[in-house]
Amino acid sequence: MLIVQKFGGSSLADAQRIRHVAGIIADTYRQGHSVVAVLSAQGDTTDELEAKGLELNPRASRREMDALMACGENMSVALMAMAIEAIGLPVISLTGRQAGILTDSNYASARIKSIDAERMRTELDKHSIVLVAGFQGYNRYDDITTLGRGGSNTSAVAVAAALKADICRNYTDVDGVYTADPRIVPNAKKLDEITYDEMLELASLGANVLHNRSVEMAKRFNVPLEVLSSFTPDIPGTKVLEVTKMEKMQVSGVTRDNNVARISLVGLADRPGVAAGVFSLLAKEKVNVDIILQSIGRDETKDISFTVARKMLDTCVNTLREHQKQLGFVDLIVSDSVSKVSSVGAGMVNNPGVAATMFEALSDAGINIQMISTSEIKVSVLVDKDDADRAVRAVHDRFFG
Amino acid sequence: MLIVQKFGGSSLADAQRIRHVAGIIADTYRQGHSVVAVLSAQGDTTDELEAKGLELNPRASRREMDALMACGENMSVALMAMAIEAIGLPVISLTGRQAGILTDSNYASARIKSIDAERMRTELDKHSIVLVAGFQGYNRYDDITTLGRGGSNTSAVAVAAALKADICRNYTDVDGVYTADPRIVPNAKKLDEITYDEMLELASLGANVLHNRSVEMAKRFNVPLEVLSSFTPDIPGTKVLEVTKMEKMQVSGVTRDNNVARISLVGLADRPGVAAGVFSLLAKEKVNVDIILQSIGRDETKDISFTVARKMLDTCVNTLREHQKQLGFVDLIVSDSVSKVSSVGAGMVNNPGVAATMFEALSDAGINIQMISTSEIKVSVLVDKDDADRAVRAVHDRFFG
Repeated sequence: MLIVQKFGGSSLADAQRIRHVAGIIADTYRQGHSVVAVLSAQGDTTDELEAKGLELNPRASRREMDALMACGENMSVALMAMAIEAIGLPVISLTGRQAGILTDSNYASARIKSIDAERMRTELDKHSIVLVAGFQGYNRYDDITTLGRGGSNTSAVAVAAALKADICRNYTDVDGVYTADPRIVPNAKKLDEITYDEMLELASLGANVLHNRSVEMAKRFNVPLEVLSSFTPDIPGTKVLEVTKMEKMQVSGVTRDNNVARISLVGLADRPGVAAGVFSLLAKEKVNVDIILQSIGRDETKDISFTVARKMLDTCVNTLREHQKQLGFVDLIVSDSVSKVSSVGAGMVNNPGVAATMFEALSDAGINIQMISTSEIKVSVLVDKDDADRAVRAVHDRFFG
Repeated sequence: MLIVQKFGGSSLADAQRIRHVAGIIADTYRQGHSVVAVLSAQGDTTDELEAKGLELNPRASRREMDALMACGENMSVALMAMAIEAIGLPVISLTGRQAGILTDSNYASARIKSIDAERMRTELDKHSIVLVAGFQGYNRYDDITTLGRGGSNTSAVAVAAALKADICRNYTDVDGVYTADPRIVPNAKKLDEITYDEMLELASLGANVLHNRSVEMAKRFNVPLEVLSSFTPDIPGTKVLEVTKMEKMQVSGVTRDNNVARISLVGLADRPGVAAGVFSLLAKEKVNVDIILQSIGRDETKDISFTVARKMLDTCVNTLREHQKQLGFVDLIVSDSVSKVSSVGAGMVNNPGVAATMFEALSDAGINIQMISTSEIKVSVLVDKDDADRAVRAVHDRFFG
């Protein structure tokens, strides 16, 4: 098999951990596989480099910041190569450029345009283990770019797609994807398989295992993913696959997201175009609005409530207050003591009972539902933050108990 | 003018010094010059990276060690770019590869084969300050190489040659080349000018200002060099030029080299081929032999004494002892309490009185000369180490006093 492995910064934090990961890579190679490992920068290196740059210039250009930060991954792959050489196996480290990862020129959040995999293939043909610096590429001006948050995951999936790898294994500090966060639900179960769409919903809902962007890319290029632990590399993790390749579960996981806040606009005029005015204004400020609830009009006014990511709350409130006159609301009420609890499952598209079961479980636990949002594979409810963990347990018990 | 500037690691050790150097570069640019600055890695970064690598693998491959160490200079140029951006001037950082510095594949001590200066020229045409990572290049396999000791000096001269720069300014922690080490000879004078050949002799004799390799390259491509201090950048330093461009001084400097040791082989057979046997053996071990003295044969035996760099002493002695029977010497005597004192001057080629004047000065000071060696522009004598500083002062006083 051709296996792409991805290791994050915490798995590479010091010499001891680098040696441990070198062992994982070597074991895979010795099993007869072709191995490409995509690495992040060691530990906090990226943050430290960024801080050094910002000390010199708080408004440093993104081009130079990318050139600086890419050094973190370049050091990682060279050090790992030395550790694998010490084991006695053939290995070569490649920068993003050497690996042929061409991106656009959006420094700090570049998108991969194409990968010229010739060099990687040549090295694999020589039976070398190939190490690729994650998080980075180069653009058509021959300048270094970085891919932004979760960039190394994206690099790994893109490399796997370019090489038509059999699997892309993401080693993290958890051993797979669970039906709920085990810190909240002690009897949560590890999933053997999950669909790309389920993984996307779970990631965006706070199950911080894979970044959405890498899952989206894996789905697009049909790259099988596996999430597993670098501490227990021999235990199979959770595979992320096409829906057609697996039996669909009704619900595959229950998650909680505390990073939400609710905004209510009270006393809006009850006429067409009012909601559009609010949300197009927020879209201009690049605020993603999640659950939206609009009251039924009475007395010629209506209320609109919606949730946003908590970090966008200030931007949101300021923008709305500035335009209060134009939008014509009477009052603006904010709550950040809320939490979003969601059930995700590719099977629920054919099973309308999931939402009802979830609401029942919450009702039985005496938990009040503030807002509801559903998609084809997800049911989300907004609850009081103090109820969130209890809500996750109640819903999880009902589906998996 | 097109000016290439080179700054070493100690000038870049922290944010404050980076800002100081950014100021020097900015001042030069504001005077209306085109500026290319070649930078070393910050402070001890290169050593730290090497130590990290060796911790993982004491026999790390040179390819991977080069890939690792090159990150030091890459970080330097990106950080400097940010500091210059903060001043508000246009600037761009380039890796060795981006600057088009093609080398051979001798990792760790690569030689520059050619420089494709197109990118640097394009950036200069855009009126940007161009920062180039020193010490590094890339080879025809698209791999990163480093140039070895003094590599950044070599990079700077090569870049200056490729761009046909008007001058290559080497900023160091001394403000020029002196007629003697001011720590030994307090009234030593700073030279305004010196020839490449004199500089080469002075460097190899321990006046640690420029590396020979960069001076050789400057001579070959006729790149005017200047040595000056980053602490007093406005004070002219010492220019290193072609001999034709300046009035030749009889003696331009007096130096001392304590890193020598003397070996004497006693009782060798007085027949042809004996000396050849000794020195071809040492050449095989890559020992550079400096001054050689052969006694006049008597009683059918002769003695041979010679000096080597002190760090090669053990290799030398072991090799000779192993081959004692074959070489046929009776005794091997070692002395490391010796020092080499030299007078260097392009003018002495037409002035045979220099050696005599030097010997006189030493004789008047009561200093015994153990061995003598002369070249076209140099007279060296071996003296007891305890006499070395006094010898330098005596000779310096005679020529410059």
